[in-house]
Amino acid sequence: MFKVGIVGGTGYAGAELLRLLAQHPAVELRVITSRAEAGKRVSDIFPSLRGRVDRVFESPGALALKTCDLVFFATPNGIAMQQAPELLDAGLRVIDLAADFRLADTVEWEKWYGMPHACPEWAEKAVYGLPELNRSAIRDARLVANPGCYPTAVLLGFAPLVKAGAVDPLHLIADAKSGVSGAGRKAETAFLFSEASDNFKAYGASGHRHYPEIRQILARMCGGEAELVFVPHLTPMIRGIHATLYARIRSETDFQALYEKHYANEFFVDVMPAGSHPETRFVRAANFCRIAVHRPRGGDTLVVLSVIDNLVKGAAGQAVQNMNLMLGLDETEGLCQLPLLP
Amino acid sequence: MFKVGIVGGTGYAGAELLRLLAQHPAVELRVITSRAEAGKRVSDIFPSLRGRVDRVFESPGALALKTCDLVFFATPNGIAMQQAPELLDAGLRVIDLAADFRLADTVEWEKWYGMPHACPEWAEKAVYGLPELNRSAIRDARLVANPGCYPTAVLLGFAPLVKAGAVDPLHLIADAKSGVSGAGRKAETAFLFSEASDNFKAYGASGHRHYPEIRQILARMCGGEAELVFVPHLTPMIRGIHATLYARIRSETDFQALYEKHYANEFFVDVMPAGSHPETRFVRAANFCRIAVHRPRGGDTLVVLSVIDNLVKGAAGQAVQNMNLMLGLDETEGLCQLPLLP
Amino acid sequence: MFKVGIVGGTGYAGAELLRLLAQHPAVELRVITSRAEAGKRVSDIFPSLRGRVDRVFESPGALALKTCDLVFFATPNGIAMQQAPELLDAGLRVIDLAADFRLADTVEWEKWYGMPHACPEWAEKAVYGLPELNRSAIRDARLVANPGCYPTAVLLGFAPLVKAGAVDPLHLIADAKSGVSGAGRKAETAFLFSEASDNFKAYGASGHRHYPEIRQILARMCGGEAELVFVPHLTPMIRGIHATLYARIRSETDFQALYEKHYANEFFVDVMPAGSHPETRFVRAANFCRIAVHRPRGGDTLVVLSVIDNLVKGAAGQAVQNMNLMLGLDETEGLCQLPLLP
Amino acid sequence: MFKVGIVGGTGYAGAELLRLLAQHPAVELRVITSRAEAGKRVSDIFPSLRGRVDRVFESPGALALKTCDLVFFATPNGIAMQQAPELLDAGLRVIDLAADFRLADTVEWEKWYGMPHACPEWAEKAVYGLPELNRSAIRDARLVANPGCYPTAVLLGFAPLVKAGAVDPLHLIADAKSGVSGAGRKAETAFLFSEASDNFKAYGASGHRHYPEIRQILARMCGGEAELVFVPHLTPMIRGIHATLYARIRSETDFQALYEKHYANEFFVDVMPAGSHPETRFVRAANFCRIAVHRPRGGDTLVVLSVIDNLVKGAAGQAVQNMNLMLGLDETEGLCQLPLLP
Repeated sequence: MFKVGIVGGTGYAGAELLRLLAQHPAVELRVITSRAEAGKRVSDIFPSLRGRVDRVFESPGALALKTCDLVFFATPNGIAMQQAPELLDAGLRVIDLAADFRLADTVEWEKWYGMPHACPEWAEKAVYGLPELNRSAIRDARLVANPGCYPTAVLLGFAPLVKAGAVDPLHLIADAKSGVSGAGRKAETAFLFSEASDNFKAYGASGHRHYPEIRQILARMCGGEAELVFVPHLTPMIRGIHATLYARIRSETDFQALYEKHYANEFFVDVMPAGSHPETRFVRAANFCRIAVHRPRGGDTLVVLSVIDNLVKGAAGQAVQNMNLMLGLDETEGLCQLPLLP
Repeated sequence: MFKVGIVGGTGYAGAELLRLLAQHPAVELRVITSRAEAGKRVSDIFPSLRGRVDRVFESPGALALKTCDLVFFATPNGIAMQQAPELLDAGLRVIDLAADFRLADTVEWEKWYGMPHACPEWAEKAVYGLPELNRSAIRDARLVANPGCYPTAVLLGFAPLVKAGAVDPLHLIADAKSGVSGAGRKAETAFLFSEASDNFKAYGASGHRHYPEIRQILARMCGGEAELVFVPHLTPMIRGIHATLYARIRSETDFQALYEKHYANEFFVDVMPAGSHPETRFVRAANFCRIAVHRPRGGDTLVVLSVIDNLVKGAAGQAVQNMNLMLGLDETEGLCQLPLLP
Repeated sequence: MFKVGIVGGTGYAGAELLRLLAQHPAVELRVITSRAEAGKRVSDIFPSLRGRVDRVFESPGALALKTCDLVFFATPNGIAMQQAPELLDAGLRVIDLAADFRLADTVEWEKWYGMPHACPEWAEKAVYGLPELNRSAIRDARLVANPGCYPTAVLLGFAPLVKAGAVDPLHLIADAKSGVSGAGRKAETAFLFSEASDNFKAYGASGHRHYPEIRQILARMCGGEAELVFVPHLTPMIRGIHATLYARIRSETDFQALYEKHYANEFFVDVMPAGSHPETRFVRAANFCRIAVHRPRGGDTLVVLSVIDNLVKGAAGQAVQNMNLMLGLDETEGLCQLPLLP
Repeated sequence: MFKVGIVGGTGYAGAELLRLLAQHPAVELRVITSRAEAGKRVSDIFPSLRGRVDRVFESPGALALKTCDLVFFATPNGIAMQQAPELLDAGLRVIDLAADFRLADTVEWEKWYGMPHACPEWAEKAVYGLPELNRSAIRDARLVANPGCYPTAVLLGFAPLVKAGAVDPLHLIADAKSGVSGAGRKAETAFLFSEASDNFKAYGASGHRHYPEIRQILARMCGGEAELVFVPHLTPMIRGIHATLYARIRSETDFQALYEKHYANEFFVDVMPAGSHPETRFVRAANFCRIAVHRPRGGDTLVVLSVIDNLVKGAAGQAVQNMNLMLGLDETEGLCQLPLLP
C-alpha cells in the first residue's frame, strides 16, 4: 500500500479525492490537512463519508505529510507553490490540483493570477498532468500540475485536429459550459442556489485564467503558435463540463476516423459514433471524456463536442490517474466506477 | 377593446399568451380553442389562472373565432397553414407563433419541416414579426410570422454588426443555449426532469430548423449571402435563451457605440455597458433582450452575448408586441412587467 | 402619489419590494438605503431593473427617509427595532419585514433571537400584518410587523379549523418546505447551488424561530393555548413554500365548506376544489395563497395543503398589501400580476 | 460466478441494476430483456454504460432467462405476476422490484392496483425484501418482493419505535418527499422538467399505493393494528427520499439510544448523532439509509428523519442486497460505493 496525503481537503476537489482514494485498493490515505477545520472529523464536514473515512483534519504543517509517498494539494491557488518545494526536497512526489505549476512561463502566470510566483524553478520542471498527452513524462515526474477542468475538456477535444494540423490553429473557438461546483465550495453570493439556478450566463468573456493554460498546450500540440477565443459559461447543474469547439478546416480528411484512431487506445476517452451528442450525465461521477465530431452541412467549420465531469476527469479523477502512473500502478486502478445516470 | 382569439392554447406559448393577454388593458380574449381539452376550463389546465381566466377551451372550428379582430395560432407546426387562410380571407388578422410562415421559400421550408406547404402564397405575403427589424411592415401586415426563439436572440445580437457590414457574414457562429420550456409541453422522455436536470447537452448540431430561418434574415440584413454555424444546446432551466455569438471583424469601428446607437430607441433591447455579462434571469418573464459586446484581447473576433426569455420575447411577448403594432396600440402596452429576480 | 422608502434594499425581500413598488400605480419610491451598497445604482445590483429603477442606494441615515409617508424595513433582524422608533416618532408609518416586532412577548423574543430587544413598547403596539386575520387593525396601525413566510402559509392553512374549534389545538403538526430564497441573499456555504440543489433536508427540527410566532397567533385564534410541532425543510427551488398541515379532528363538520366559507371574500386566498393538490408554481411570483383540504380514508386526521410564494405573500407582496390597507388604497392595488407558469 | 437476468431493463430501476451488477464481482449479467427496445444495444439507450455493458436487449420471452440462477423483474406493475411463476417453477429464484408480490392480501392488492392478481398463491409465499427486518427469510426465499421506495424509508424510520411499542401505532404520520426519478422513466407531462422543476407539490394525499404496503408491515412490527397518514410529495431533485415521521410517545425511553442499539449491527443503516439533519445527498448513489431522531421541546411527539436514495436502497441497491443474501454472498458485496457529494 502506498501512503498518500492531501493538503487542503475541504473543497470539492478534496472531497472528491477523498471519495476516490477511500475506494482505491492500492493506497492508504495517511493524512489530510485543513487550516480551517483542523481537529474536526472529516465525516462531520462530509457526512457522506460516515463509516468509511474516520480521519481527523490535521493542521497544515502536519509532520505526517513527510511520511507519505505522494501528496496531493487541493488548496486554493498560491499555496502549493509555497509548501510543495519542502516536500519535493524531502523526496516526496506531488500532484497540485490548483494552478500554481500549470504555466511554464511564470511571468505570464503572475499576470493572470495576480501574485508573484514563489518558485519558478519548479514551475519549469513540473509536468502538465494530462495523461493522454504526456503519459511517459508523468510516470517519471516528481511534480505534476493537474490540468484545469476547462483545459481538460477543451484540449482532449481539440488534440486530434491540432496535432494533425487539420485546422487553422490561430482561430480556434471554445465555448464551454460548466456546472457550478467548478466555482468551488467558497461562499460567494453569485454561486448561491437562488442566484445560479434557473439561470444561464457567460463570465470572463474578455479573459479567463484557463485561457493561457489552454493556449500554452495547444501551441505545444501544433508545434507553433496557437490562438483561441475561450468563453466560459455557468450552467445550473452541480457537475459537468460541456465544451463546444469550433475550428476552421485547413486540410481535408475523415475527421471521425481521425478521432477514433487518435483515441483508440485511451481507456478514458470515448469517441462516440458520428452524429452523437454527448451529454454531461453520460460521464457524471466518472473519469471519462466523451467526444463527438460534427461538420454541419459539410461546410468549412468543424464542431466538436466534449464532455467531462469537472470534479473527476477535470480534477480529482485525473489526479488519481496521474498518481497511478507515477506509482507504477495500472492507470485505471480505482477509477472504473460507472457514471451515474439518472 | 379589441377582440382576440387563440387557436391551440394548451402549450407553453399558449399559456404565456393567456398570462399576458389576461393582463392587457386593450384587448378582450374572446375565444380559445384546443382539440385535446375542448370543454375543459382553462384554469383547470393552468391553475395559476384560477380566478382570472374563466373561459372554457372550445373546439378548433369555433365560430367565435371569426368574431375576433385578430387570432393567434399557438399550435404545432403545420396547423396554421391549414386554418389561417380561412380567417385571413374573412378579413381577420393573424399572428402565427409556429413556423408555418417563417420561410418565404416554401421549398426550403418543406425540406426542413418534412411536409408539403399548404399555402405558399401566404408564406410569401407573411411579414416576419421581428419589430426591431420590420416595424412598419408589421403595422400593416395581415399575417405575421412570429419568429422562433433562437432566431430572435441570435438576430437581435448580430443585427448591428451585419447591417453595418462590420463582420464577415459568411462565417458567423451562434452557440445558443435554451431552457427546457423551448421544447414545449409535449410528453417526451428526453425532456423529463430526471433526464434534463443536472445535465447539459447540444442537439441538432448538424442541422436545426432555426438555421434556415436565421440565415434567411441575416441575408436580408446584409443584402447578400450569409452563412452561419448554429449549435443549440439544452440547459437545465425552465425559461431563457442565451446566445453566444462569434463573428470575425472585417472593418474596425467602436463596436460598443455601434450597438448603443443601433438600439438607442428600442424599448425592449438593452445594450449593457462594456464588459457586462447578461444573465437569462435579467429578463425572466419579461419582453426584453439584453446584449453585451466583448472583444477578447483586442483580437479579430467579436463575442456578443444576447439573452431573452424564450416564452416572452422569444414567443408570446413578441406576439403581443406584434399585435400592439398591428392594432395601432402603443407597442409596449401590456408588456411592461419587470423581470422576476430571483 | 404616496411617498415610500425602503431601508435595506439589497436582500431578496428588498429586491421583490422594488419590483412590486416600481409597478405600483399609487406610490413613488423616494429613497432606498443600503449600508453595504450606498452610492451604487440599484440597477447595477439588480440588472433586472435596468431602465425602470434609476435610483441610487443611499446610506442608512438618509434624511430623505423622513419625507416619506411610509417606510419599509427589509433589513436583517435587529435593525428595525433600533431605527424605526425615530421614524415612528416623526409621524411616519412603518412596516417591518423582519422579525423585530412579531412577538408581543419580548422576553420570548430575546430567547429566540439571542439579543436584547431595543424597544419592547413598540413590540407591544405593533400590529401583526396578516390582513386576512387583522385587516381593520392594520388599517390604523402605525407599525406593522410583517409575518414570517412560514407563519403566513401555516396560519392561513390552519385558521378555519382552529378558529372554528374543529381540531385539537394542542397537537398540531406543520411540515413545511421552503425554496432557498427563504434563506436570504447572504453568502453561506449551505445555500450554495452545489450544496442545495439536487438535495432535500430538514433543518431546525428541534426549534425554529417561526415556531413561537406561529404558536402565538394560533393561540389568539383559538382563544386559549395552542401547541404545534413545526419542522421546516429546504427544497431545491428558488421560490415557494408548501405547508403540509396535520390536525386531529375534534368536532365533525363539512371541512371543505368550512374553508370555502371562511375565505369566500378573500381575494388572495383560493380554496381549491376537494381533492386538489396546490403546487407552489400555481402562485409563483404572485400574492396568492392556495389551499386544499384532505381527509385520508375518512379518518380522524385532516391534511391541509397550503402554498404561497415566500417572497410575495410570504414577504414583499404581503407588505404591499399591508401598505395598501394603511394608506387607504384598494387592497389589491399593484398586486394583481398573475403567477408565472411554467 | 452466478448468472443473473433482468426482465424489463429500460426504466430507472433497470438502469440502476445494470450499473450495480456491471460492477458486482460475483455475478454475470447473462440476459436483459425489453419489449420496446429488443434488438438495440443497452449502451445505445444508456450511453453511460458504453464500453462496459455490451449486451443487446432481448425480447421478453428469451430462453436465456431460464439459464440464470436468479432473475430480477424491473417491469411495470402487473408483469411479474404473469411471468415469474414459470421461472419459479423452473427452479429459478426471483426478485420483483415492482409491487406485484408486496401485499400478502391480494384482495387489498386488487383494490389499490386496479387489476385482478394473477397468482395469489405466490403473493402469499413471497418474502418482503427488507433485509433489516426479514434477513433470514430472504436468505431462503424463492421469490422476494422488493419493497417500495417510500416504504423502505418510512419503515426503517419507524421500526425501532413501533417494535418497542414506544409510540401510539394508530396515529403515525409519514410526510415523505421524493425525487422525480421515483415516477419512473415514462413520458408524462407532469414529470417534464418544465413542470416539475422549481416546484413542490403533494400528490395522492387521499390515498397512495404505498400506504397499504407500509401499514401491512407496521402491523407485523407491532403485532397488532397499525394506522398511518401517509402524504407523498414531489421535490425537484432526481434521486432521494426524505421521510419526516411523526409519532406520539406512549412510553418513555432514551430514544436516541433505542435507535443506535436497534441498528448497531446494520451496515446500511446509519443512526446519526442527536440533533442531526440527514440530507438526501448524504446517501446519493449509495445503498445507505441515514436516520436522525428529534423530540422538539421535550414534547410528546417524536420527529424521525430518514433518507435513502430511492433508486438504490429504495430499489436496485436493495434488490442486490437481497440477491446477495439469497445467493449466500456477503450482504455488502458490490454495494460499498460511497455516496456522491456534491
